[in-house]
Amino acid sequence: SSVSTPIRATLFPGDGIGPEIAESVKQVFKAADVPIEWEEHYVGDQIDPRTQSFLTWESLESVRQNGVGLKGPMATPIGKGHRSLNLTLRKELNLYANVRPCYSLPGYKTRYDNVDLITIRENTEGEYSGLEHQVVRGVVESLKIITRQASLRVAEYAFHYAKTHGRERVSAIHKANIMQKTDGLFLKCCREVAEKYPEITYEEVVIDNCCMMLVKNPALFDVLVMPNLYGDIISDLCAGLIGGLGLTPSCNIGEGGIALAEAVHGSAPDIAGKNLANPTALLLSAVTMLRHLELHDKAERIQNAILNTIAEGKYRTADLGGSSTTTDFTKAICDHL
Amino acid sequence: SSVSTPIRATLFPGDGIGPEIAESVKQVFKAADVPIEWEEHYVGDQIDPRTQSFLTWESLESVRQNGVGLKGPMATPIGKGHRSLNLTLRKELNLYANVRPCYSLPGYKTRYDNVDLITIRENTEGEYSGLEHQVVRGVVESLKIITRQASLRVAEYAFHYAKTHGRERVSAIHKANIMQKTDGLFLKCCREVAEKYPEITYEEVVIDNCCMMLVKNPALFDVLVMPNLYGDIISDLCAGLIGGLGLTPSCNIGEGGIALAEAVHGSAPDIAGKNLANPTALLLSAVTMLRHLELHDKAERIQNAILNTIAEGKYRTADLGGSSTTTDFTKAICDHL
Ligand SMILES: CC(C)[C@H](C(=O)O)[C@@H](O)C(=O)O
Ligand SMILES: CC(C)[C@H](C(=O)O)[C@@H](O)C(=O)O
Repeated sequence: SSVSTPIRATLFPGDGIGPEIAESVKQVFKAADVPIEWEEHYVGDQIDPRTQSFLTWESLESVRQNGVGLKGPMATPIGKGHRSLNLTLRKELNLYANVRPCYSLPGYKTRYDNVDLITIRENTEGEYSGLEHQVVRGVVESLKIITRQASLRVAEYAFHYAKTHGRERVSAIHKANIMQKTDGLFLKCCREVAEKYPEITYEEVVIDNCCMMLVKNPALFDVLVMPNLYGDIISDLCAGLIGGLGLTPSCNIGEGGIALAEAVHGSAPDIAGKNLANPTALLLSAVTMLRHLELHDKAERIQNAILNTIAEGKYRTADLGGSSTTTDFTKAICDHL
Repeated sequence: SSVSTPIRATLFPGDGIGPEIAESVKQVFKAADVPIEWEEHYVGDQIDPRTQSFLTWESLESVRQNGVGLKGPMATPIGKGHRSLNLTLRKELNLYANVRPCYSLPGYKTRYDNVDLITIRENTEGEYSGLEHQVVRGVVESLKIITRQASLRVAEYAFHYAKTHGRERVSAIHKANIMQKTDGLFLKCCREVAEKYPEITYEEVVIDNCCMMLVKNPALFDVLVMPNLYGDIISDLCAGLIGGLGLTPSCNIGEGGIALAEAVHGSAPDIAGKNLANPTALLLSAVTMLRHLELHDKAERIQNAILNTIAEGKYRTADLGGSSTTTDFTKAICDHL
């Protein structure tokens, strides 16, 4: 496709601060001349009056057609029987890998310097099966499901990611000393894939030990791949090392190469509509989407503009100790482009 | 019982560095005139030639009779069909709560100051059920079991601990947004118990968020109570904040008031027998045993001697950046008494 044909990408602004931070992405993309045409759909905790639905078929179809999308935070609809919309999207679009790059932002000080980690989380099974039963009164069980297919798929993604991103080591995180069959199968699949990537160092780390080592010395790790719940936990732990979920991008990879980038923080209803939200996580997520589209120059330029704006420190939103509005911060980024 | 009648306590030195660090405890207790008579049993990865067993009935009976014990690290026997001895002890003695105090050691610098956390882990069920099945080839399931009985028991222990130790807040850690029935039952039990302790602030925190907050600002927490696997993960994370498992005590509480204190680090076979091991975790665990016996003066004196020795920094083992032997470090503690 020629440069003049715009790429269509789906945009789900989401709830709460979602529309404001999505607006920030649109402006930054415009300022950087990114050849993307947004196809915007509302998915969130309000029933769309036209369709009487939280999540329309058209919204899903838009991501499937475009192959790429960006989503803001979505609150879970209130009331009985509603599943988290995040989980519904993962399921409907078969988003099997959640990739979260986590790196220290220059000039934004935390207890940790030079963090540079990639967590890759299996996103479809494990403890998220939704299978729970009350066996007898007062005894409840929940099923964790690990399959060879999903484990191989996410392991393959992790090693391919490591190789194509100049990474040296993949650590599989597990608790196979206790869950020998389930986590054991996950490790077996990782080992099989590791053999195809002799240039990547492969190791296995028990999750409790991994968490201890991450807080002591995150530089011990590079790419981490793991089942669903461990990924949920460790990706948030890693985000904490560099300042929190407001600063970390995330991208979900689906069958057939779909990429749905997302800000994983909440919808922050308390500050919604007040022009106070920090759009960094959504902006950096949008950057991962650009990289997925191999628009590396645009990605690099935008990422630098974001990081430089934060590093300078003149324009920062309240969560980073500043007093800028969302629009001022966004304008500062555009000025850096 | 009068002061002159010694209290009998079981001692399992364990494997690897176990005997050396157990020796250190014996010497420190002697120097502090602790009225304890050790009943020593070998439990570990070697078959006892007299009994042809890894774990004898007498060893278990000793803890049951004495009501208190101290254990060093135990390696899992090599070969098929052997369960971790740690897990076997938890099961046989019904050690339902694992308590890990985690506090910054004065003078031993990490990225975190003034950490002061207590993790209380359900120790008998959850993901540790051992129930795993291959459903069809390539599909494995594992059962997490949560019961009302075990949840109430550990919640009761946590609130009682908070109250009797001058703590203000109990946080129940969970993932009930995903595992609504299992973790939901755990929370329900915590809430029931919380109502009986109106003087203690009660809150519920999702595990991923908890890990992020712990690395950002551990002072947000006080006592944390949680199901088995989350406890495994979070107690190690907390240990990492203050320097690692070599520095954190642990105590297991069983039905009928049994207390088995333990060092939760490994048996470090590489340095075993070389007089290099750091006995701090086992010593501080022994202190929790003394507190359980309400020997608070002795506990306080020994704890201060350990902390002061580390704080002075003249005698430190290699893992803390020093060059002291186990025996020199132990002697320094005794000199502080
Ligand atoms: C909101 C919640 C269901 C979700 C999860 O557990 O996966 C979130 O924590 C995440 O990491 O995206
Ligand atoms: C060794 C292992 C089985 C054990 C556990 O998972 O409980 C350990 O990590 C612990 O925390 O005591």
